[in-house]
Amino acid sequence: MKSEGTTTTASRNAKEILTQFTREVWSEGDVEASDRYIAPRYTILHDPGDPWEGRELDLAGYKERVRALRAAFPDQVFDIQGLFADGDAVVMTWLWSATHKGDIPGFPATGKRITMSGATVYFFEGDRLAGHWQITDRLGVYQQLQEAQAGGLKR
Amino acid sequence: MKSEGTTTTASRNAKEILTQFTREVWSEGDVEASDRYIAPRYTILHDPGDPWEGRELDLAGYKERVRALRAAFPDQVFDIQGLFADGDAVVMTWLWSATHKGDIPGFPATGKRITMSGATVYFFEGDRLAGHWQITDRLGVYQQLQEAQAGGLKR
Repeated sequence: MKSEGTTTTASRNAKEILTQFTREVWSEGDVEASDRYIAPRYTILHDPGDPWEGRELDLAGYKERVRALRAAFPDQVFDIQGLFADGDAVVMTWLWSATHKGDIPGFPATGKRITMSGATVYFFEGDRLAGHWQITDRLGVYQQLQEAQAGGLKR
Repeated sequence: MKSEGTTTTASRNAKEILTQFTREVWSEGDVEASDRYIAPRYTILHDPGDPWEGRELDLAGYKERVRALRAAFPDQVFDIQGLFADGDAVVMTWLWSATHKGDIPGFPATGKRITMSGATVYFFEGDRLAGHWQITDRLGVYQQLQEAQAGGLKR
């Protein structure tokens, strides 16, 4: 009984931690706040299209990744759709939106508002995030960027 | 205590049901087995690129969707990577592989082996599946099909 109660409390805490982490680090861009959330070794288990896929990052490497991914979309916001906790994992489904303000390969800044959806399985070690397995709808982003390029000032 | 024990058992059963459903209906192509797994109303809450996204299907509609999606890839197999149960939901992460044997829009059959990864949140009503929220790496599939077209018989 006690262990199940503990598990329930831990699940609730893990969801709260992940919600705070997503807001502070990824949406508000407080990269240094990663100190409070990221484990000494963070492994990107699966993340098609992510330049760091398959790599193990230390804290400095994780911060570098956040800065790089935020550079082209500095006002990005993650709107959490669902949180599902089981064991040491919490799955987060999300909708992302951002203005395309910086250049990315193949797409100079368009100024266009872009949206994307995704699902991320985060793995905890204690109260720290130690890695993730993620799928994002990157085709949807490419289609919006291509449309923005094709449309130009006509839109 | 009893309710928590029940929840744990229900979670285990939900994972087993989802594993069997995925194998029988989606991997082995026993479309009629949907009778044992799908609720009278099945809602596709979010599934970018799926022709049925946002729709509510009855059992006949669900079977139609399975047949249509399997038509171009008749030997498809879903390899489950992870199952995460919380409340009435089970999240499944998966790797899919199939031979491209039938035509799809823009891509006549290439005969090429294709892989894709995805994450699906399934929502249960009792022991039946009543809907899903899904992200698939459809850009990865398009890139493999484009490569197959460009390479042709050289490969």
